[in-house]
Amino acid sequence: MIYLDHAATTPLDGRVLEAMMPYLRDQYGNASSVHAMGQAARRAVDRARGEVAALISADPSEIIFTSGGTEADNLAIAGLPPARKDGRRGIVASAIEHHAVLHACEAAGADGAHLTLVRPDERGRLGLETVRRAVDADTALVSVMAANNELGTIEPVREIAEIAHEQGALMHTDAVQAAGQLPLDVREMGVDALTLTAHKFYGPKGIGALYLRRGTAIDRLQLGGGQERGRRAGTENVAGIVGFGEAARLAAEEMAARSGHVAALRDRLWQALCDVPGAERLGDPEHSLPGYLVLRFLGVDGEALVLNLDLHGICASMGSACSSGSLEASHVLTAIGLDPAAAREGLRLTVGRGNSAEEIDEVAHVLRRIVERQRELTGSRD
Amino acid sequence: MIYLDHAATTPLDGRVLEAMMPYLRDQYGNASSVHAMGQAARRAVDRARGEVAALISADPSEIIFTSGGTEADNLAIAGLPPARKDGRRGIVASAIEHHAVLHACEAAGADGAHLTLVRPDERGRLGLETVRRAVDADTALVSVMAANNELGTIEPVREIAEIAHEQGALMHTDAVQAAGQLPLDVREMGVDALTLTAHKFYGPKGIGALYLRRGTAIDRLQLGGGQERGRRAGTENVAGIVGFGEAARLAAEEMAARSGHVAALRDRLWQALCDVPGAERLGDPEHSLPGYLVLRFLGVDGEALVLNLDLHGICASMGSACSSGSLEASHVLTAIGLDPAAAREGLRLTVGRGNSAEEIDEVAHVLRRIVERQRELTGSRD
Repeated sequence: MIYLDHAATTPLDGRVLEAMMPYLRDQYGNASSVHAMGQAARRAVDRARGEVAALISADPSEIIFTSGGTEADNLAIAGLPPARKDGRRGIVASAIEHHAVLHACEAAGADGAHLTLVRPDERGRLGLETVRRAVDADTALVSVMAANNELGTIEPVREIAEIAHEQGALMHTDAVQAAGQLPLDVREMGVDALTLTAHKFYGPKGIGALYLRRGTAIDRLQLGGGQERGRRAGTENVAGIVGFGEAARLAAEEMAARSGHVAALRDRLWQALCDVPGAERLGDPEHSLPGYLVLRFLGVDGEALVLNLDLHGICASMGSACSSGSLEASHVLTAIGLDPAAAREGLRLTVGRGNSAEEIDEVAHVLRRIVERQRELTGSRD
Repeated sequence: MIYLDHAATTPLDGRVLEAMMPYLRDQYGNASSVHAMGQAARRAVDRARGEVAALISADPSEIIFTSGGTEADNLAIAGLPPARKDGRRGIVASAIEHHAVLHACEAAGADGAHLTLVRPDERGRLGLETVRRAVDADTALVSVMAANNELGTIEPVREIAEIAHEQGALMHTDAVQAAGQLPLDVREMGVDALTLTAHKFYGPKGIGALYLRRGTAIDRLQLGGGQERGRRAGTENVAGIVGFGEAARLAAEEMAARSGHVAALRDRLWQALCDVPGAERLGDPEHSLPGYLVLRFLGVDGEALVLNLDLHGICASMGSACSSGSLEASHVLTAIGLDPAAAREGLRLTVGRGNSAEEIDEVAHVLRRIVERQRELTGSRD
């Protein structure tokens, strides 16, 4: 089995699991309980909060733990504009946001918000002038992802945050795909809110966070108990939070080494495939997450490639796992100008810290043969 | 350490952890990915869905996994009334619901719903006539918990569901505290929606579910990807779901033995304490979860008892962990007629499957001394 779908999710780091184990065994207290068992859990949650905050140079008090990236995105989009209480109705987002942002924006739109979607260029990167034209004195919130999950394209978040702030709007960034891969500093980026999830950088599934700049008002989404300083109700997922913290700590410590490793393998893979007839690289090589290689082999269906790779024990994807099974073409690939048929040719190969050069060579070899075979089968080689 | 706070959370069963381990190690796929790693995760999620469904005699398709009881409660309260699209604005709930229900009801009220809270009797049990008077042709939803988390009092959910349905209202029950402790059959109870969470019956924290009767429309709460058949977005917490399934399977299998064990220890504890001067048992012994002993020692502050028990290595609580640290008196204890000062005397001791008779005897001995000592200190013995 060769796993090249690290954009969908990553293996849990053995060291992260080790850190979680005490909280899956003896330290089972409810972090809100006042007794010793509860206090031990509370201390673990607080320690992890510090580690997650440190990954993005935030203050621990600015971290709200959620059940994952989707909840954090929903919280930002649904919670930030109404809490302003200044009557602004505008939300500006990129057209290639994850559905966790886009669908939350559409729901806000159904409730009366004015939604403006900004299109990126053909590499998936937003132009600052395009953003500037969309943001005005009615804009409550601008939401642009730090890096796109399907393409790996890194967005100019710092510059967009400046544009947002010039107009008095808040700035949110979905950093689910970027976190742990790129250095992120919320002060330097100038964002008011930022979404994280653990399972994209070798942490557990089912735990994420919203960074919320101190002093920023937000309406709550999940209502009930007083957890997370009253900002997110629900019994704390202590083991998950501890794993999130450890994964954040390790990502911060090892980021440069990991990036170097996956970028080198990604480049090796592209070198081995770039001479396949009709091979085309999507995304923006100048501004790309290190492990991303998004390809298109002209005339070859992406799903056929994924299924055939799977038969060879190679895990890859067409794009977002969250949209798998959907019959619609990727909204990301159509937004960068591909027609629906072309968008179905997308193949996303995302390298991780556990991959080796041997695996990469094997994948290149197998994929080349599969592409040839597909073209023979469909007669589309010429 | 003697743990008598099983109502707040329970230890993770070693067998549950064992079942989770493959999904914390090698089976790390995203359950929405089409490749083999994804499909293995998908099969595990489906198997667990069947086990959770079986615990409440539901169909697997009727289970929506959530991040816990709070999210499931929020989803039911926020999602069911508007999806009716028949203009009904009424929500009827008991005054002793968990805040995850009550605060969601209040938010619905702020959005125009007509909220009616029904008071229980002094044992925390709802009278059917009281409910009948509150439910009318405008009622969209009735929400009454299966058993109260602070008192352990079991509510007549089946009879209340009949009243709701006679008026054309939907019936939701928060069974977070009851599940795994009492046999629950959604058909027999006649409920349209039911909330579960794993960590109250020896499963992991951070995972819960809403049972939703087939054919019942609901507005989504968490928006994004197409997971849970489009009813709840977000990457599946595979290991958590697997643990939830195994905890449900074990609870179903061992329910009678567990109930017998904890009820016997609970009775033993009460026998050992009932002659303490001013000792009073709260809740409804005729309709009580098996492990619950809720006490009051007249004139003795509950928090002082909890803190002193903690110094002796005994974990107990005043009431809901979710409200710990709150300066307000318990809304449950005030709803059953205690004044705020009396409500602060509440002490909740909740027995679990791991407790022994020796532990119970030790707790009785220590608690008796602490009560005496507290009365000496405050001079309130006379």
